[in-house]
Order: sequence, then structure tokens, then C-alpha cells
Amino acid sequence: MTFEIAIGPNIRKSPFFDATVRDGVRSFSVYNHMYIPGHFGDPDAEYDRLVNGVAMWDVAAQRQVEVQGPDAGRLVQLLTPRNLTGTRVGQGRYVPICDHTGWLINDPVLLKLSEDRYWLSVADSDIHLWALAIARERGLHAIVSEPDVSPLAIQGPKAVEVAAALFGDWVRDLAYFGFRETTLGDIPLIVARSGWSKQGGYELYLMDRDRGTELWDSVKAAGAPFGIGPGAPNDTERLESGLISYGADMRVQDCPATPFEMGFGPLIDLDAGHDFIGRAALLQERSHGPARRRVGLFVEGDVPPPGHPLDLCRGSECVGFVSEIARSRRLGRVIGLGLLRADIGDEASGLEIDLPGGRCPVQLTGLPFIR
Amino acid sequence: MTFEIAIGPNIRKSPFFDATVRDGVRSFSVYNHMYIPGHFGDPDAEYDRLVNGVAMWDVAAQRQVEVQGPDAGRLVQLLTPRNLTGTRVGQGRYVPICDHTGWLINDPVLLKLSEDRYWLSVADSDIHLWALAIARERGLHAIVSEPDVSPLAIQGPKAVEVAAALFGDWVRDLAYFGFRETTLGDIPLIVARSGWSKQGGYELYLMDRDRGTELWDSVKAAGAPFGIGPGAPNDTERLESGLISYGADMRVQDCPATPFEMGFGPLIDLDAGHDFIGRAALLQERSHGPARRRVGLFVEGDVPPPGHPLDLCRGSECVGFVSEIARSRRLGRVIGLGLLRADIGDEASGLEIDLPGGRCPVQLTGLPFIR
Repeated sequence: MTFEIAIGPNIRKSPFFDATVRDGVRSFSVYNHMYIPGHFGDPDAEYDRLVNGVAMWDVAAQRQVEVQGPDAGRLVQLLTPRNLTGTRVGQGRYVPICDHTGWLINDPVLLKLSEDRYWLSVADSDIHLWALAIARERGLHAIVSEPDVSPLAIQGPKAVEVAAALFGDWVRDLAYFGFRETTLGDIPLIVARSGWSKQGGYELYLMDRDRGTELWDSVKAAGAPFGIGPGAPNDTERLESGLISYGADMRVQDCPATPFEMGFGPLIDLDAGHDFIGRAALLQERSHGPARRRVGLFVEGDVPPPGHPLDLCRGSECVGFVSEIARSRRLGRVIGLGLLRADIGDEASGLEIDLPGGRCPVQLTGLPFIR
Repeated sequence: MTFEIAIGPNIRKSPFFDATVRDGVRSFSVYNHMYIPGHFGDPDAEYDRLVNGVAMWDVAAQRQVEVQGPDAGRLVQLLTPRNLTGTRVGQGRYVPICDHTGWLINDPVLLKLSEDRYWLSVADSDIHLWALAIARERGLHAIVSEPDVSPLAIQGPKAVEVAAALFGDWVRDLAYFGFRETTLGDIPLIVARSGWSKQGGYELYLMDRDRGTELWDSVKAAGAPFGIGPGAPNDTERLESGLISYGADMRVQDCPATPFEMGFGPLIDLDAGHDFIGRAALLQERSHGPARRRVGLFVEGDVPPPGHPLDLCRGSECVGFVSEIARSRRLGRVIGLGLLRADIGDEASGLEIDLPGGRCPVQLTGLPFIR
């Protein structure tokens, strides 16, 4: 069953919108109040390009929240449990953000542009409003804004060849999450080694919304010898790789989760003494241990229609939920991600998922499914 | 040109989703991270039902931000420039919300459920995060949450007959924005005289997500004698009526506007002495007058493809923007809404809109287009 998406003025168009339309985009979703491509008509080929070749994605909807000013460093440290001491200019960090109760409200990548200027490359929630409220309520000297910045991702094992063809061999030496400001011709952008897949790649942070088509076409031309084609963040690959999707796996309004539950424990140093929002709640959670843990699971059945989280049951008890399910092409099995009561171990038996067509057995497994 | 909407786990389904699918919904948009119907295949008939008969809309995406606790009243007053003194239980108020700089970040309807419990029925931004940050940073005793509440709107001149058939004649005496908690059979809900149209009507705030289809079908059955049919918030009618759409007309991230610019001046009493966020900025704006004003305009040309705000020009100067344009069926003309430099009066000549196909003259006019 398919439906049209309403195109209207209340959802923003990406700078790459026209180029993706010209190149055959067939579906969109909405992310950070912006259209984001879903697929281009051949999901299998798009998956293959991502895992075996190279794909290009319009991920402009991954908006930036810029924090700038003498207190910018203080503000970004307040926003995340991760200890940012020692973060260098040109370095990116994955920085979960919590509310005061320790629930996750986003999981952006932080880019440190200078000692007093940072970008949070955000998942789908208005962190702009959150950061603004914290900055003003604490009287910090930091401006919070959304700059004219729109990422285009190049993902897949051959992405490095495309990026090298575009920018030169220095991109091969860029560390993971490292980035550098540069130009392509005279298009201003930042090249970062990052992206929402585990296939490797780069994100080009376009800094001029009027040059979207030009950048898209440059990447397309440079990627042609490597078989590049358009695609989009891929749910099957993200499940196989165990990547987190804020909004799908958790959302503070109706499906909250903590960083410890989501497995971010190793990123969080509660003993470093730095202050951040949610610290008291996380200290308390650490003292008694998280209530749930993140699990992968194999489903013995068909892929249900996409939608709401599905209950994970043991007998008459609801012991967790499954956030997303897909058929793994590489494993030939139906896989899913969920949150399970922490006292239930991987060896547990009798777990079932409550599907629209009836209950179906599941088998727990470690993450990621594919390394 | 039409595109599919990707149906996936990162966008929530409304409790009325299944019923709208069964009843032929053809397009969706996304609002507050939830699918919201766009149309059901016959936009002209849907418009006619709204302005001449009665329509039913799934507006569950108009989520509620609940504020509850001893400081709930203090918190909601902090959030809005509108003076809430004298607001009674059972009364709704339209409450613009500003950031500390006086930019609008939402324009919800506030429902006062009791002295210590309120709902903000929000437009498309994460006011949940904003209210949470303000509450915690100020140490207020108020819980901020998203309750299980999903509005279904009944709109149009015959809406009162449908509501009376469902609930009894008392609904005829409900004041505009007044509401009452009740049940339909044993379905818990709130009946409010409200809705995002100027055709009159009600919103039923369903308080049990498992009973969406049941409520939908009850309204459908009660409305059948009056020719009810499914529809959705209607862009043409909202333009004719001069209704504001946060996200389309303004958005703090990339298209900010102030309450004075949007014409909310009469709602704001800066001399009452109550404290609220943005007060200093609004006092300053009042002292020198708003920089822009909201205008209606007639466009001498065709309706352009929907999308970005369009520049409003006078000669080589950009003097404002147009947020949305549509052909008014009742006026037989192309109309639009925009923000224009405040020093340019209604009698100004030589204004043009910058359309993809070239410039096109516009003529200013008062709002609303149709009363």
C-alpha cells in the first residue's frame, strides 16, 4: 500500500531536492521539517551499491545547530554526558544528548570548527530549541542558530575513491569523524569522514544552499567510474550494522530510553567531574544498573508492515519492544532491533514478538549482526 | 509530479491511521513526527464539504504538551506573552510562544484542565523540549509530558449538528475555545469548540489511542445524515481565512517572525507586568514598531509549484516574502499570504513576486480574504 506525500510550504526542500527529482527519486520521508529521499525506484540495487560499491545520499535534513561565542564550549559540554575535554578542532564526536531526567533527546555528531564554534549535526528533534533554552536560561554567551549547511553523503566501500577523485588523496588519511573545510571549485564545504552507515564514507557539508545541484552533479560525475548512484539512508543496512535511529528506536515523548540502555555507557565518563544536563540521573542509573538493554533478534516469520514498536513478550508478560524489523539480504533472515528487560539474558527462551498476524518466536543475538 | 511517502518506524502513526487508510486517504504529510492525512482523492469535494457542509479530519498530529504540578500555571505563563490572568478551567486560549529574542517558536491553543494541569495543543515544533528545558532550568515543580491524546476535528457549518447528534444540545452553547471532558459511550475524550478553519466546528480530544477507529466510525455514522466526509486541514481555506501556519508562514530556524509582525499585538499586554520569556525583546520591538507586517495579496498569474517562500520585490529591492499561494475557489483568484516591510502601505504599487517562471505583479489587500 503506497500513499503520496503532500508537497507544501510547511516542509522544507533540501538544496539537493531538484537534483534528486531529476534523478528519479520516488519516495520521501520528513526529517527535521525537511523532505528527505526514501528510495529511487530500485531498493535492491540501492542496497547493493551501498554495501558493494558507492552511493550518494541527500542528507541535508540532518540539519546543523550552530553554537558560537565565548561560552560555546561550555554550552556543548553541558548538552552531552560525553566528556569533551581534549576534543580538537577538526574532530567530530558522537554526542548523545539527555534531558535532566537522563532520557535521550537526540544523538548528533558534534563538529568542533574552532575553539568558539561548533555544529551539532542532529537527528530528528528540535535540538535548536533545547540548546537555545539552555543557553539563555544559564546566561551563556553563545549564539544558537541554524546555518546554511546541508550534508550530502557518499557511502560505501568505494566512497574513498570518489572522495579522492573530488578532493585529492588527503581524504584517504582523514580519521573517522575527522573533517576539513575546503572548496570544490569554488563551492564552499566541509569534508568529513562520516555517515549513517557502517560501509565507510564521507559527508560533504555544503555551505551554500544555492549550489546544491552543482555539488550533486560534481559528485555524480566523479563517482560515475565507480558506479555511483543515488540512494538514501538504508534501514536494512542500519539494522544489520546495529546503528541507532533516534525517532525509530526511541523518542523522548512516547518511547524514551537512556544512554546506558542504548549501550552508550563506554562513551560516558561520570567520574571526570564535568557538569552536564542529566548527570544526577545518570549517576543514579549507574548505581542500580539500566532497566533495559539493547538487543538484536532473529524473527521466525515474515516482515510485518512497518509502523509502531511491537511488543516483545514472554508468556503473558511484556518484557520489551522491537523498534524495527527487516529482511537482511546478506543474512537471508529477518532481523530486528529492540530494548529488552536487562535481567533477561541472551540465552533466554520463549520470547515472542506480537505481530499483527499473531505471535512469532524470536531468538536473541549480539550486535551488530554484520561487522 | 507526485512522490510516495516512506512509511517507516521513525514517523508515528495516528490512532486514526487505520481508519483513514480504510476510508481512502491518498496522501500524507508529517507533523510533529506523525503522519497526517493530506487528501482523500477529491480535493474539490473536500473543500466544498468544509465550507458548505461538514468534514472530519485526523489531526492527532496536533500533539499535546501536558504541564502538570503546583507550578504548572507559572510555567505556562512564562511560556507565552499572552496574559493568562483570569483564564478559567474549561477555557482555551490561543497562546503564541516566543524564544528569549522574541521570535515565535509555536502558536498552540492552551487548554486549562484544572488549576494545576494544562495542555498545549501544539503546531509543528518540539515545544515538549522547550517547556521541559524551561521548567527544569528554573526549578519549577511541573511535569512536562506528552499524554495519550489525539484530536479528531469536525469542521464546517454543519459541524454543530454532528456534534449535537453525538453529545447532545449542550455543545451548541459551548463558547469558542471552550471545552468539556466527557465520554462517547465509554470512549474518554474532551469536546472543544475549536479547529484550524474559520468554518466553525469542534475537536474531539481522544484520550485512549486504542479507540481511534471506534471514535472515527462514531463520528462518521453521526455525520452521515449531514453528508460528512473525510478531509484534512485545508490550505486554500486557511489562506482565504488568513489563518497562520507555523512552519509555513514562519519557523524560527530559517524564517523567523515576531508576534507583532504576525499581527498578535492585540493579544499581548506588555503593561500587565507578568513575566514571560521574550518580554524584554517585545518591549523593545514595541518601542520602535515591528519591522514587517502580515499582508494578503492577489497574484496576477498562475499558482506556482508549492515550496520555499518566494521573494516579494519592488524594483531591485527584496521587501518581503510570500509564504503560500493558492487559487481561491470562492474568489476565483490566486491569493497569498506574506510578510512585507512595515513602511510599505496597502496602496503601494510596483510590487512583484519572484516566481520560477519570472516576475509577476501582486496587489496588496486586507486580511482575511473572506470573513
